[in-house]
Amino acid sequence: MSASTPGGPQIAGHDSRADMTLGNVLAEHRRSRPHELAAVDGPVRLTYSELAARVDLLASALLQAGVGPGGRVLWLGQNSYRLLELILAVGEVGATVCPVNWRQSPAEIEFVFDDLRPAVVVWEAATFADVVERLASRCDTAFLEATDRSGDSSCESAIAAAPPLERTQADGALTQVIMYTAAHDGRPNGAMLTQQGLVASSFMHAAVNSLFEERPVFLAASPMFHIATLLGVLSTFLVGGTNVFLPRVTAKEACDLIESERCTWAYLTGPSISEVAEFATRPGRDLSCLRVPEAYVKTDSRWAGLGRTATSPWAHATGAFGQTETTGVISYAALAHGARGAAGRPSPWFQVRVVDPDGAEVDNGQVGEITARGIAIGPGYWNRPDLNQRRLRDGWWHTGDLGRREPDGSLSFVGPMTRMIKSGKENIYPIEVERCLLDHPAITDAAAVGVPDPVWEQSVLAVVVTADGVELTAEEVIAHCRARIASYKKPRHVRFVTELPRIGTRLDRDELDKQHGGGGYPGVGR
Amino acid sequence: MSASTPGGPQIAGHDSRADMTLGNVLAEHRRSRPHELAAVDGPVRLTYSELAARVDLLASALLQAGVGPGGRVLWLGQNSYRLLELILAVGEVGATVCPVNWRQSPAEIEFVFDDLRPAVVVWEAATFADVVERLASRCDTAFLEATDRSGDSSCESAIAAAPPLERTQADGALTQVIMYTAAHDGRPNGAMLTQQGLVASSFMHAAVNSLFEERPVFLAASPMFHIATLLGVLSTFLVGGTNVFLPRVTAKEACDLIESERCTWAYLTGPSISEVAEFATRPGRDLSCLRVPEAYVKTDSRWAGLGRTATSPWAHATGAFGQTETTGVISYAALAHGARGAAGRPSPWFQVRVVDPDGAEVDNGQVGEITARGIAIGPGYWNRPDLNQRRLRDGWWHTGDLGRREPDGSLSFVGPMTRMIKSGKENIYPIEVERCLLDHPAITDAAAVGVPDPVWEQSVLAVVVTADGVELTAEEVIAHCRARIASYKKPRHVRFVTELPRIGTRLDRDELDKQHGGGGYPGVGR
Repeated sequence: MSASTPGGPQIAGHDSRADMTLGNVLAEHRRSRPHELAAVDGPVRLTYSELAARVDLLASALLQAGVGPGGRVLWLGQNSYRLLELILAVGEVGATVCPVNWRQSPAEIEFVFDDLRPAVVVWEAATFADVVERLASRCDTAFLEATDRSGDSSCESAIAAAPPLERTQADGALTQVIMYTAAHDGRPNGAMLTQQGLVASSFMHAAVNSLFEERPVFLAASPMFHIATLLGVLSTFLVGGTNVFLPRVTAKEACDLIESERCTWAYLTGPSISEVAEFATRPGRDLSCLRVPEAYVKTDSRWAGLGRTATSPWAHATGAFGQTETTGVISYAALAHGARGAAGRPSPWFQVRVVDPDGAEVDNGQVGEITARGIAIGPGYWNRPDLNQRRLRDGWWHTGDLGRREPDGSLSFVGPMTRMIKSGKENIYPIEVERCLLDHPAITDAAAVGVPDPVWEQSVLAVVVTADGVELTAEEVIAHCRARIASYKKPRHVRFVTELPRIGTRLDRDELDKQHGGGGYPGVGR
Repeated sequence: MSASTPGGPQIAGHDSRADMTLGNVLAEHRRSRPHELAAVDGPVRLTYSELAARVDLLASALLQAGVGPGGRVLWLGQNSYRLLELILAVGEVGATVCPVNWRQSPAEIEFVFDDLRPAVVVWEAATFADVVERLASRCDTAFLEATDRSGDSSCESAIAAAPPLERTQADGALTQVIMYTAAHDGRPNGAMLTQQGLVASSFMHAAVNSLFEERPVFLAASPMFHIATLLGVLSTFLVGGTNVFLPRVTAKEACDLIESERCTWAYLTGPSISEVAEFATRPGRDLSCLRVPEAYVKTDSRWAGLGRTATSPWAHATGAFGQTETTGVISYAALAHGARGAAGRPSPWFQVRVVDPDGAEVDNGQVGEITARGIAIGPGYWNRPDLNQRRLRDGWWHTGDLGRREPDGSLSFVGPMTRMIKSGKENIYPIEVERCLLDHPAITDAAAVGVPDPVWEQSVLAVVVTADGVELTAEEVIAHCRARIASYKKPRHVRFVTELPRIGTRLDRDELDKQHGGGGYPGVGR
């Protein structure tokens, strides 16, 4: 303790920053809400006191199984209270858990397994017996079987046999969760999310969803291997609410649980909304406990039949920009009150810069790569040192997404950054040209390709699909663009085709280059 | 960048925890909301872009004046946009500002000056000319005069002459604000509040006041040398709202500003409420912009005439426990939804333990000292190494306040810890006995004093004042207590007096001991 330095964390031997962990939140819940319900999952009902005791034992069991600081655990299962327990337990020992995307093929799951090299796999026998058999034959990882929502499993035996936990020092900067993201560069990459990042993001998530207003009960029905559902669970946990786990969405079970557990919120997407709405509106049902965001009701009438209208900031404006690697949302429309950019403004956890390829901030109105920094930004991808070096340049996380600051300073998301075209020192992002081309009423699909140019290094080739029976000339296409975007961005060449190559819904840009002579891109740092 | 360690902040040369500073919030506001109004103060109106530019210059001017990392600045002024600028500017250079309690006597202000030893004093000529004259004669501190809300001052000249700022590395663990608190132990002590603590507390303050819901406009009328008003300003700043500064509360000006600037919230206390309400309800006034907490209206009808009813968590339940040293509120009734303890439950930033004098957690229902840890806890008091060592034992901040966990885990605040009586190994806090005594209908005032006891080390002496004309015996008083509190806590002796010695409203316990033979207290770690 020194009186001469006003700064510095001066609690002897203790940096209070280390305290920003979900484990410390759990320690306080154990004291503050011992009898409140933390988790519901089929027949399992755990109070915060019971959850905390189980997490200690599970952490001890993981240590016994060789998962120490820096160790990895793979969760091969659907939504379950066990995944929440695992996240908290690995946090206690400074280790990491990866909830696998169980919709992937066995080969894809094997890729994750080989990439992660987990010391322990916790798996649900009902769904993953075949996968586990293949994995078990080729390594010495420990496999703890966790029969769904039952007390009879090797996972429960390990918990029962665990000695008292010897805790390691909490540290918010440690990675706690690894989530594999879409394979934009040909293979999935495991985004590392830190203890403090999960706390910070959950806090903001709680604030924009008004979870401090009434004790939340969350229906975790959408897959928890997606960051949105995970944050739903963790923000509910953060404020001491109840998480209700459903392995996967089925409309009747979702409705039954919302009704019986009085769920106050849930994430439902796509087809499940219709199905749930159909069940919800049957006579005798009472789902008035569920808060339904106003914005959802406005854009999708199927929501109208579900519950009552929510009044949280998020409920009014659900526009946002973020990614798994930033532990979720960076920028919220809900924080931008009438601003021009649909992605709104950053939460107080983030700073954002829109930059050119040299890392210089571009002027408002110009498109560039969105970069961010702040306490919720993770340390990059597991086992990808080269990629991390490119993505974490100059202390800023390079999102690989294009954006623009509007004149009022708010953000617009433009699209994923793909090949950047460089023409006469100017940067041209294909997506900008493509958006302009698609504004033409006669054009139904379009791609912009960078083709080698002896004078300009590269120039833009527009590859377009026109509506049936419409005649369009190259000059007309070029004139359309010249009137709408900077002249250097307009196509110099146009090709008419009947179809563009795609992988799923995404343009297959490798194939486009191959078909149309694209090449010479200066690289965009992905 | 290492692929073999999953944890650790791996942005090269950058610990993202350092980012939790108000300065980083300002940097992002400058980008995200350049044209939005940050501050209003008399004729001064500053956008976030203008505020950020001025803060950079002020920071540079402070550096020039010798305020580097660890340096101190004293603010001798009432509420002003200049104090917000100073807080942000010292943050930029790793220094600290102390907003003086201007209600103190010149001698008390001199004590703070001598204790703080500031390199620079920024002062308002209108109010502090006499004080500054006395201070200036005895040291070589630089004095920057900041004539109220005017551009013509030595402070403005220093800003105008400042070279571009060379920033130091942001670090959330540094002390940014020092606030002198009440002189419980005979002299005021300067509580050190860190950059990260101010961000964390402001974030929670924003959440419980629903500041993410609509852009807030805060009337800073109550003194900013109190943590509640300061957090009102900083939480409004955090979410990019407007702060409207009024040097001190006058009812007409407050009403005029609420109306003209469309203020959405304010702190008003005591007599100012009546005065403001009187002005607010005059014909032609429209203060419908102001959100008035429901809980205030219920307990004090004068609020009813002001504005519309607020719906934030805080508006429904304003019970709380906290102190300046913990950067404000630790525990909120608003987070406890029907719990028994009036102080509710801790915010996610805090862990709380109620402990005995040996630091062991006491059982629920037992009274002990409230201790806390977490990211918003500061490093203690400026220039008080011995006191800090006592208050920060075992990595926990000892609040010097007594509390109790109810059976449901929620917290009750019992009262300030004063002398603890030790009787036969049992701890007895005078305030518990005093509360019991005051429950007796015939007792109008009471104190519990520890008197030496040959067998029990100490025993309890009750010193009581009875209502006029009521006869009461010692036996009756003891029987009353025996029926209500643990037997070992009951008084063994009773003395009847006509008056108890007080300092202001507080019991003068030194004088009580002197008058009634108290002594032999084992010490309570303050």
